[in-house]
Amino acid sequence: MHALAERIVNKDLRGLARGISYLENDHPDKLTILQDLHTHRKGAHVIGITGSPGAGKSSLVNRFVQFLRAKEMTVGIVAVDPTSPFSGGALLGDRVRMAEHFTDPGVYIRSMGTRGSLGGLARTTKETVRVMDAYGFDVILVETVGVGQSELDIMKIADTTAVVLNPGSGDVVQVFKAGIMEIADLFIINKADLPGVSKLMTEIEGMLDLVKHDSPWRPPIVQTISIENKGLAEVWEQVEKHEEYLQESGEGERKRNRILQQEVLEVVHYELVKEVEEKYQHGKWRDQVRSGEIDPYTAAGNILSEWKSSVRNDTNTREG
Amino acid sequence: MHALAERIVNKDLRGLARGISYLENDHPDKLTILQDLHTHRKGAHVIGITGSPGAGKSSLVNRFVQFLRAKEMTVGIVAVDPTSPFSGGALLGDRVRMAEHFTDPGVYIRSMGTRGSLGGLARTTKETVRVMDAYGFDVILVETVGVGQSELDIMKIADTTAVVLNPGSGDVVQVFKAGIMEIADLFIINKADLPGVSKLMTEIEGMLDLVKHDSPWRPPIVQTISIENKGLAEVWEQVEKHEEYLQESGEGERKRNRILQQEVLEVVHYELVKEVEEKYQHGKWRDQVRSGEIDPYTAAGNILSEWKSSVRNDTNTREG
Repeated sequence: MHALAERIVNKDLRGLARGISYLENDHPDKLTILQDLHTHRKGAHVIGITGSPGAGKSSLVNRFVQFLRAKEMTVGIVAVDPTSPFSGGALLGDRVRMAEHFTDPGVYIRSMGTRGSLGGLARTTKETVRVMDAYGFDVILVETVGVGQSELDIMKIADTTAVVLNPGSGDVVQVFKAGIMEIADLFIINKADLPGVSKLMTEIEGMLDLVKHDSPWRPPIVQTISIENKGLAEVWEQVEKHEEYLQESGEGERKRNRILQQEVLEVVHYELVKEVEEKYQHGKWRDQVRSGEIDPYTAAGNILSEWKSSVRNDTNTREG
Repeated sequence: MHALAERIVNKDLRGLARGISYLENDHPDKLTILQDLHTHRKGAHVIGITGSPGAGKSSLVNRFVQFLRAKEMTVGIVAVDPTSPFSGGALLGDRVRMAEHFTDPGVYIRSMGTRGSLGGLARTTKETVRVMDAYGFDVILVETVGVGQSELDIMKIADTTAVVLNPGSGDVVQVFKAGIMEIADLFIINKADLPGVSKLMTEIEGMLDLVKHDSPWRPPIVQTISIENKGLAEVWEQVEKHEEYLQESGEGERKRNRILQQEVLEVVHYELVKEVEEKYQHGKWRDQVRSGEIDPYTAAGNILSEWKSSVRNDTNTREG
């Protein structure tokens, strides 16, 4: 086993931090470490938390972590902010507020920005969850700011996906149009002391009637007022119910299998592109395109043919 | 020439709309069309406009389009919103406000969300700019909401990149940390009637002193109050000055070459991944991973080896 993988499995927090940096920086040992850790996966329950900026997600996560810690569960948190640097520093502010957890060895927080993530944000986030799982957290929270396609991808790694909404925000139609309704396992109406809760409930139920026909799990709606610690126990109760459903229905295993298989294809793509890029980073095609001798699309076709013929002639890596 | 490419070159607006849909949906004829259009590129000046949500970008773009139309220039607009669906519908609202242009054949607006963009948002946006250029707009505006890595990528296609800031927003440090300072050619202080303009000017100048040592172009700072149409002429003046600088210094050609060459590699990557994905979408590796017989990383390695050996044995496509 790779030394760093061993440190992670043995609950060395600095080893964990370094391991995640390896993922972000696409370290050459990355795949070896992931391979080693794969056999040490513990099956933490992964909860994805998404919703619009300003929905109070981070504050909710903060209070929920306190709640879980009171139950003596350890928590790994991946905070993904693909909209940085223009998120107004909200995430950073929340991280400062979460600093109270920093001295608690049962909590580990990692922020993922779009910078320093060479392999793509979604991919690095998923791998980070893998590494945190091998480390042995009881619960892993993946928090994303905003939801575009890449966040939908990120959410695929969660066992339970919670969508946070606020009364009066008018987000429901957006959520519906974006296909988030289909991935939501749980709705949290945060700031439930604001007016408009029953209207929002009705809207969510109405949207739910239009989708989710293929699953017996109908996403429950929980009301929270995170700053008053209200509703956190209900959130956890619903997460546990969903976990139970996942196990009993076999849906959990199917879900995990889908994720694993998707991961295989992602590794294939990434390695392939890296190999070709290294080989053709430089070449006569650059001059040809510059001079206008050939157009970019013909140049791309030439590189593809050349690469294939180099594979054919490469006896060193010949298998059969 | 492909029939659709011909329609686009002949300024058929419905042909243009369909062509862009081909890009979004990764139509089989896509590369052929791009290839055909490459020889008909006109060299429109491409202006990228980025900045934080709420900076008044869309309103600025709206007024700027009116300004350009008054000068009888035609304008193509690509509005990119990677943060949808949780952008609060701001972009949609702005599009409605821009509806006044819809009846003007000299303006074409296309919104790009994260949905329906199979080839990746940055790639589709760049290709859309190519197609709009072949159509023959005088100016092409690329507007992005929020700035993460993918928006930085998108901005690479712009000849001139304008960063929109507001007084009192505190965005400058974020912009600096994100590496946007390095790609900015022009700063626009919008809502310049708000307090804090001179403080913001000082901050931007201070940051500029820390970067941009390799270029003789120092990004100017223009103040606008877009809702009062103030400062738009100054923005255009600076864009023209920057265009002149790009031509005289040779930097414009170098920039366009870099973009073209990057495009070649992107096409290579995309075609390669598509080919492998089609071939290995199904296969025994799925069962092996499911049963735990092999880990995902070994499975990925196996697929890569198998694919290479299939290339070797494929005599149909053998070149030499």
